[in-house]
Amino acid sequence: MIRFDCDYLEGAHPKIIEKLVETNMEQTAGYGCDPHCTRAKEMIKKVCNAPESDVHFLVGGTQTNTAVISSALRIHQGVISAQSGHINVHESGAIEATGHKVLALPSSNGKLTTKQIEECFNAHHNDVCHEHMVQPAMVYISLPTEGGTVYTKKELEDIYSVCKNTGMFLYIDGARLGYALASDGCDLTLPDVAANCDVFYIGGTKVGALFGEALVINNEYLKKDFRYVIKQKGGLLAKGRLLGIQFETLFEDGLYFEISAYAIECAKRIHEIFESNGYEFLFDSTTNQQFPIIPDNELETLSKEFTYDYWCALSDKKSGVRFCASWATKQENLDKLENAVKALK
Amino acid sequence: MIRFDCDYLEGAHPKIIEKLVETNMEQTAGYGCDPHCTRAKEMIKKVCNAPESDVHFLVGGTQTNTAVISSALRIHQGVISAQSGHINVHESGAIEATGHKVLALPSSNGKLTTKQIEECFNAHHNDVCHEHMVQPAMVYISLPTEGGTVYTKKELEDIYSVCKNTGMFLYIDGARLGYALASDGCDLTLPDVAANCDVFYIGGTKVGALFGEALVINNEYLKKDFRYVIKQKGGLLAKGRLLGIQFETLFEDGLYFEISAYAIECAKRIHEIFESNGYEFLFDSTTNQQFPIIPDNELETLSKEFTYDYWCALSDKKSGVRFCASWATKQENLDKLENAVKALK
Amino acid sequence: MIRFDCDYLEGAHPKIIEKLVETNMEQTAGYGCDPHCTRAKEMIKKVCNAPESDVHFLVGGTQTNTAVISSALRIHQGVISAQSGHINVHESGAIEATGHKVLALPSSNGKLTTKQIEECFNAHHNDVCHEHMVQPAMVYISLPTEGGTVYTKKELEDIYSVCKNTGMFLYIDGARLGYALASDGCDLTLPDVAANCDVFYIGGTKVGALFGEALVINNEYLKKDFRYVIKQKGGLLAKGRLLGIQFETLFEDGLYFEISAYAIECAKRIHEIFESNGYEFLFDSTTNQQFPIIPDNELETLSKEFTYDYWCALSDKKSGVRFCASWATKQENLDKLENAVKALK
Amino acid sequence: MIRFDCDYLEGAHPKIIEKLVETNMEQTAGYGCDPHCTRAKEMIKKVCNAPESDVHFLVGGTQTNTAVISSALRIHQGVISAQSGHINVHESGAIEATGHKVLALPSSNGKLTTKQIEECFNAHHNDVCHEHMVQPAMVYISLPTEGGTVYTKKELEDIYSVCKNTGMFLYIDGARLGYALASDGCDLTLPDVAANCDVFYIGGTKVGALFGEALVINNEYLKKDFRYVIKQKGGLLAKGRLLGIQFETLFEDGLYFEISAYAIECAKRIHEIFESNGYEFLFDSTTNQQFPIIPDNELETLSKEFTYDYWCALSDKKSGVRFCASWATKQENLDKLENAVKALK
Repeated sequence: MIRFDCDYLEGAHPKIIEKLVETNMEQTAGYGCDPHCTRAKEMIKKVCNAPESDVHFLVGGTQTNTAVISSALRIHQGVISAQSGHINVHESGAIEATGHKVLALPSSNGKLTTKQIEECFNAHHNDVCHEHMVQPAMVYISLPTEGGTVYTKKELEDIYSVCKNTGMFLYIDGARLGYALASDGCDLTLPDVAANCDVFYIGGTKVGALFGEALVINNEYLKKDFRYVIKQKGGLLAKGRLLGIQFETLFEDGLYFEISAYAIECAKRIHEIFESNGYEFLFDSTTNQQFPIIPDNELETLSKEFTYDYWCALSDKKSGVRFCASWATKQENLDKLENAVKALK
Repeated sequence: MIRFDCDYLEGAHPKIIEKLVETNMEQTAGYGCDPHCTRAKEMIKKVCNAPESDVHFLVGGTQTNTAVISSALRIHQGVISAQSGHINVHESGAIEATGHKVLALPSSNGKLTTKQIEECFNAHHNDVCHEHMVQPAMVYISLPTEGGTVYTKKELEDIYSVCKNTGMFLYIDGARLGYALASDGCDLTLPDVAANCDVFYIGGTKVGALFGEALVINNEYLKKDFRYVIKQKGGLLAKGRLLGIQFETLFEDGLYFEISAYAIECAKRIHEIFESNGYEFLFDSTTNQQFPIIPDNELETLSKEFTYDYWCALSDKKSGVRFCASWATKQENLDKLENAVKALK
Repeated sequence: MIRFDCDYLEGAHPKIIEKLVETNMEQTAGYGCDPHCTRAKEMIKKVCNAPESDVHFLVGGTQTNTAVISSALRIHQGVISAQSGHINVHESGAIEATGHKVLALPSSNGKLTTKQIEECFNAHHNDVCHEHMVQPAMVYISLPTEGGTVYTKKELEDIYSVCKNTGMFLYIDGARLGYALASDGCDLTLPDVAANCDVFYIGGTKVGALFGEALVINNEYLKKDFRYVIKQKGGLLAKGRLLGIQFETLFEDGLYFEISAYAIECAKRIHEIFESNGYEFLFDSTTNQQFPIIPDNELETLSKEFTYDYWCALSDKKSGVRFCASWATKQENLDKLENAVKALK
Repeated sequence: MIRFDCDYLEGAHPKIIEKLVETNMEQTAGYGCDPHCTRAKEMIKKVCNAPESDVHFLVGGTQTNTAVISSALRIHQGVISAQSGHINVHESGAIEATGHKVLALPSSNGKLTTKQIEECFNAHHNDVCHEHMVQPAMVYISLPTEGGTVYTKKELEDIYSVCKNTGMFLYIDGARLGYALASDGCDLTLPDVAANCDVFYIGGTKVGALFGEALVINNEYLKKDFRYVIKQKGGLLAKGRLLGIQFETLFEDGLYFEISAYAIECAKRIHEIFESNGYEFLFDSTTNQQFPIIPDNELETLSKEFTYDYWCALSDKKSGVRFCASWATKQENLDKLENAVKALK
């Protein structure tokens, strides 16, 4: 079986594995107070052009989202998200479990607009009963979104501007940030991202690492005491250096960007395989996740050789599904996919 | 100014006030362990035809909803509600503050259908990623709804049947239950309500009491240790007898039903006042809340003499507003409203 | 049976009842936005000499404590309390239910010392692993304490000074504040209390009201958005004027202070009844709760005629118990208690 | 610098590293639904002689404790722990953050006694105000404790018996379980542990793994829906196979027991180094953590060459400190420690 269902199918990029092997018997202090974490943090601040920011490493995305959001909000506040946002759908209520409502706004492609955000904020504050309702205090967006779409630099700047004007935090979930930055549809650089939000994370789990996310906090209020929060939310890895070592490797020679670009090339090929054979797509994704719409009988055929992620049933016995590329995608598997899709016709 | 904006404008029914005066210097044990509470509980069990149920008194609705829902759900579970449900909109995130997601389903009139509930449950359990999503475990409905509509006996029986089949609790918010039961649109009796849910409450605050809600728990699992929950959620009134005294008075001679019926008569008159003058309504409410649609310039005129609750802006410079009747509505005020509405034309 | 077990045995002071009767059919806006609440708030700010403070009314003590503490603390912070503190023992985990640890310090008489508070703060911050531990961020004291003892003005000033120096909030639970202020052991005035903390409440439930507590917030950070918090924690009474009316009555002619002083006179008599008959006391209480130590066989005799609150078993078949006086204590009942205690010998 | 301050100084046992290298480019399903996890779970059930139990893998200890405890307790319930218990001291309030009080009992050596547990339970249930207090519903013990001590089989059986009789869950934190089982002071086997509690975990982080804990759930109630809880608490690693691979390696040829035994040999040598030079110890630890009491001036000397964990200041300018052995301790470092300690005299 050849797997395309997600971008966390394999272990880590071989250079990370090498580094883990090489450093294995070093003795270091625990909980991220080791030279590898220190060095990786400096690298990330530099590549983000964010010398004043704080960088922390956490184990996974749900944990990172939970730590950031629960730490930022006061008890009567909620976080605005697209309905399809990961925190609204796929974290088993982790945000609510810390006491906060996700204020979900509709979105056809996973992106929020400044208009939506402003309207949500104003509707709340203009209501005479606003004290009876959850106060919007943070905007959560994903880059790329769950549908693989990306914000332009202008869009991100505008959203951040609305956030600053309304006193809301802007938080960017960058679980697949590398793939967004490498995408043709995206005119953002990493420093652009860092300059246009209060806090964001650079995903490692889906971009070459065994696991791990690098959180970058720009906002002074959010910086304070954040290590307590990481600990409380179960994210303070005893052997914290494992995270430092991985991010050192990803950022010391541009590996993060290089493997992201490779994944995007593979994703383009997936796109072409389906498009050239006449398939349409659920979302206009320019990143590593592609969402072709495929007749159910053809899916059945493909299932014999490939895994994909089932997204949603559509009318006419068709379904939207997800095929992912990653740093680890093999060309030979793309060749096989191409042949199989051609053979469907 | 004549107020019609809500149904908690005055104090309590005079009989309740009398009883409070009369019992004021009695010495009783605290926290609901007094003879008045005991007697009121027995009355309620009797009038509900629910001898095996547990009855508790709490101070207000948000508190009651929070106590019931947070006590019933395990940490990964959520409660299904109409989007317009009180817990989803008007409790400042009280449910989420206890760790649980409100799974909001769309509804044009405030009611949920069995179809919606079943689909929500099935969609969850059929998803291969269901463990990544909040598990629906309770259905919350209001009787009457926020839009003043009511469920029929058949509808309630069907919903409860779905709940039992799927292992979800059914909880009925009866903040205005008296007004539902007295409504022409409702073929339910109090024993019908009690027989068709796991837990519900009989609202006092909006139906004649100074404050207070009588919670009736039918389900054995939910009964266990509930007084701990009331205490933790701030609902265990030190002078608990105040609640007992009020509910004794409401239920010893059918006062609760009598004043509810009176309010419904007043509400019908409000309805007729607007309908006979050509106004349409937001919801097909047969209970004590009426939602006429009124041109904004006419509203401005009415505002000089009357208060109402602003519900929503509509197109064509019209708005939906709420006029409430209650046990305390005065005929002379209805006369004045009638004249004022006529005068608009 | 003559009850001395607590100070919430009766309804409300007759003047409050009168006022409730008198205002019963007034129509007012809900949720505390009525003229009675406005007037009562002004009175309280004046009597506290705290024109810049915010005043809110809540229904009960557990709710008030929960709202204040959960709103003040960030998620990794805890509240310092005496081990015997109400929040640590008698609120069914309400504080923890909002996510915060109560950092309980030992105390023989219910009072905390500046030394303890400083040591707790320093021990935390000097520990290299402080991020693995709950950060102390608020000090909770009761005036009077659970043992009926009171802080002197000097002690309170010193504690507040420590709090300000360490950046911790000081919160005073004044469930029985009137009885502390009226006590011989207390050189504090209400303005002194208001000037020496970030937030405190003036208890109504135990000092003449049917129910209700008046929260006074001095600290700007804590003022912000507090009505959201009250709503979320179930404390925003629909007929909020009931609280306004009660506190108006308590504060317009000094009734609060007058009835507190009366209760203290009664408590002194209880003290003398036991002391003159050779009994010792658990705590050196100068307030309305008295804690005589009584042989168990004598308690059995007293139990036939009187209720008291059982506090703790001691050696030698003796027990510590609580007898409470209040604004409602009757002289004839004190006479009977005197006779009964004398008769034990 | 030679480090003895903790048992998570190095990476993983070389066999684990080998296996990670070997499997790195395998494609597997995510979230623990891969063949490595399946195989590791079977191995663990077998070595525990617990074929009916459920096994889950989580990333770290705080996360595991939080998931288990928050999932087991209802909202008014708390967990009994020794005051020195990890959940009470060193998890930044993680348990309270999920809404539950840690009911901390004093202990000189980190162990709880059946007497303490019974008294705590009975004191609660015998109190007439028990509904005002947190209900004890789970007992948390550590094996070994924070002081390195262990329970005997008899002690564990008795505690479990009390738990079953009182309806409380027994949960064993086995962060260092291997070191307990290998200790001379311990007559328990892994099947004994599994047979005498409702749920426990086998720590990997401190016993040879890069990270990871294997949770074994015996109790049917606790088994239900536990994967939701893992996800919500941030413990469902995307590349879950990393945990499976590590535990496969630890349990397929008895590696876990072998390296634990090695660590105990090293710890005995640390003990002898100090004991033979006349030092006393804080706790009577027979496991991998040793707690010598050392004059502060001598500590200063040792600090130049070695790291240790500072535990507590004692009188007479002495301190209690912790030296840890682990699977990775090198004999040459023990030699150096021996020489250094001798040289102090």
